[in-house]
Amino acid sequence: MSVAFDSLWESLLPIGRHHGSGGYRRHAWNAADLECREWFTSAAQERGMQVSADRNHNLWAWWLPDGWTGEPTGAFVTGSHLDSVPDGGAYDGPLGVVCALAAVEELRAASMAPTRPVAVACFADEEGARFGLACVGSRLATGVLDPDKARGLTDADGVSVAAALRAAGLDPGTLGRDDEALDRVGVFVELHIEQGRALAGLDAPIAVASAIWPHGRWRFTFTGEPNHAGTTALADRHDPMLGFARTVLAARTEAAEAAGLATFGRVVVEPGATNAIPAQVRAWLDARTADQAGLAELVAAITAAAVDGSRPDGTGVEVTMESSTPVVEFGAAPQARLAGALRPLFGPVPTLATGAGHDAGILSARVPTAMLFVRNPTGVSHSPAETADRADCHAGVAALTLAMREWAAPGAGAP
Amino acid sequence: MSVAFDSLWESLLPIGRHHGSGGYRRHAWNAADLECREWFTSAAQERGMQVSADRNHNLWAWWLPDGWTGEPTGAFVTGSHLDSVPDGGAYDGPLGVVCALAAVEELRAASMAPTRPVAVACFADEEGARFGLACVGSRLATGVLDPDKARGLTDADGVSVAAALRAAGLDPGTLGRDDEALDRVGVFVELHIEQGRALAGLDAPIAVASAIWPHGRWRFTFTGEPNHAGTTALADRHDPMLGFARTVLAARTEAAEAAGLATFGRVVVEPGATNAIPAQVRAWLDARTADQAGLAELVAAITAAAVDGSRPDGTGVEVTMESSTPVVEFGAAPQARLAGALRPLFGPVPTLATGAGHDAGILSARVPTAMLFVRNPTGVSHSPAETADRADCHAGVAALTLAMREWAAPGAGAP
Repeated sequence: MSVAFDSLWESLLPIGRHHGSGGYRRHAWNAADLECREWFTSAAQERGMQVSADRNHNLWAWWLPDGWTGEPTGAFVTGSHLDSVPDGGAYDGPLGVVCALAAVEELRAASMAPTRPVAVACFADEEGARFGLACVGSRLATGVLDPDKARGLTDADGVSVAAALRAAGLDPGTLGRDDEALDRVGVFVELHIEQGRALAGLDAPIAVASAIWPHGRWRFTFTGEPNHAGTTALADRHDPMLGFARTVLAARTEAAEAAGLATFGRVVVEPGATNAIPAQVRAWLDARTADQAGLAELVAAITAAAVDGSRPDGTGVEVTMESSTPVVEFGAAPQARLAGALRPLFGPVPTLATGAGHDAGILSARVPTAMLFVRNPTGVSHSPAETADRADCHAGVAALTLAMREWAAPGAGAP
Repeated sequence: MSVAFDSLWESLLPIGRHHGSGGYRRHAWNAADLECREWFTSAAQERGMQVSADRNHNLWAWWLPDGWTGEPTGAFVTGSHLDSVPDGGAYDGPLGVVCALAAVEELRAASMAPTRPVAVACFADEEGARFGLACVGSRLATGVLDPDKARGLTDADGVSVAAALRAAGLDPGTLGRDDEALDRVGVFVELHIEQGRALAGLDAPIAVASAIWPHGRWRFTFTGEPNHAGTTALADRHDPMLGFARTVLAARTEAAEAAGLATFGRVVVEPGATNAIPAQVRAWLDARTADQAGLAELVAAITAAAVDGSRPDGTGVEVTMESSTPVVEFGAAPQARLAGALRPLFGPVPTLATGAGHDAGILSARVPTAMLFVRNPTGVSHSPAETADRADCHAGVAALTLAMREWAAPGAGAP
């Protein structure tokens, strides 16, 4: 039971929920996202924490040891993100933030006095739903994303990140690598809802993450010859929709072969008229496998299938990598320490690899990092139907409480 | 040679041409479409014609016999439309209007005095590019389209036909069946660029139309389960993109089998994110065959393939007919009379059936109607690459001149 969790959760739930779909439309710097940031600031302040933004507009809520002066160092940091994919679920991101705030509330209620700084972080633009690039806040902080490139990203209406930040009253000029913020971190532990059904299969509420699969996005541009759908003989057609269709089916076959994942979830057809053979079909491939070599092989096989599948119609295909994230292996030491801290309450905790990217994956290149997953009974994610049992959410709070004690309670060892 | 054609053609060419694509974006009641209507009015007036709009805002330019008073009756009417599909070509529609105005100019220059009224008509919203329904102006005039339904059609931005008309300074209240306008017509002859390569294969510049294939639009809604593309095991997926892909390929096979045409040119994916398995794929089928029974069989076969193709993934599909236009057989009498009028200059003129809908097809239910096609050397249509040889355009002017003489010169028989 966590009364702290329940009240925080209920207060966040209505923000940015779409009445029609029931899903969330909290996209970087839109009204719902800004409302979430205000909610976070108020919730943290009400729990006695001091909230500040770093130069990339990630939010940090601090719980400092009594008498601490000056900059925090060696901090135990937890948290996640509040933004969503289009019509996303309530848990992806917010569960990690709400469990973190609830854990602080419960430890304060139990009169724990931290011996090192504790922070709850809320990273900006994790999903990349609006500007097309995921983990913008953490990528900027670690320096892997160029601030000029970030400022110039545009949404579907042509609004840039810079313009969106200015419209939100925030300064786009400060974006960039942020050693000052990351030097404060001793360890970062991100809690996240699982996005598959592995824990449901194991009958366990909590897992420790071992790795994040390498993954990326590739744009497939199938080009044909636009023509009248009602008059162009089949033999005279160069219809790029056919090559695309063959590639969709090949991608599924190749992914099964590679024990990986391949998805075409976004398609744009030009000119997009019912009575016109398309000039062009652009489709985006999301591909993931357990290792780097396997991913390269999978994408090569799908590319070859696209080329072969375009040939019968005399159409062409170009494949462009839009992003690629290498494998992340979480450090053995924080993994073991986290599992040890959880054992008294949870017993031996399973470890899981995941295909989903996270801020923790980005930050792991720069600071010691670990992740916790909370059971997802249906495995559904990035959907309004995403759900978790309330008891498992409370288990998440308990797990973060144990982690905070492990790293920040009196007697805790070095981070 | 037609100097009259060349100068009219060059003056219309720049209106509504998109700099990037080189194609036309003249969509019902947008700025380019309104500019085309002004161009038509000026060009007709400069040639001594009187221009008026009917209650559905179709334009009519009149050349009346000397001393004619009162309402025109038994008129020889030619013309076509000036609007385009998205990024359409220069010829589809405008060729018929420009050839008609040029033919009037040449007969006036040759001092022909018509013995019955002659008109050049310009029908509104033929392509249906903006509001999704083709031949709105002619459908309203013949009464097959309900004016309330027409007024309520909306574009992609939610703007209704009624609002678009009001914004153009036109009254949406007058829309509806227009016997007064159609009672003036003795015969309607529409000239149009061919939208295939049949005439190129026959080495002939001009054909007379025999029929318009039955055709229609069907919306296929493939429904699956939205989920995270990076974490959902292949076995747990219900991805509607796969059923859609199988249906695209089946549609091509079935169309070949039926000696017909089937095209998926418009696709909308929800939620449409790269890292999300789609909840839904909506795709629009355009299907056409030579006869009604064949069309029904073709659509039934594609529907069955969609159902079968959705089964392996546990997804569903619903098929909804959005529009259906029955076969049009042009009357034997006007066909024969038109072919006879052309014979002195063109010899025996081929007759062609077409898969494309036209205002002439709609009007043929109400008035005697015939069509002429002008050779399209590449067969390309609904594309910026659509083209015709200038000599063939001049042949179109000559053909309409002969038709006008046949029906309206001194000594012409009854329409």
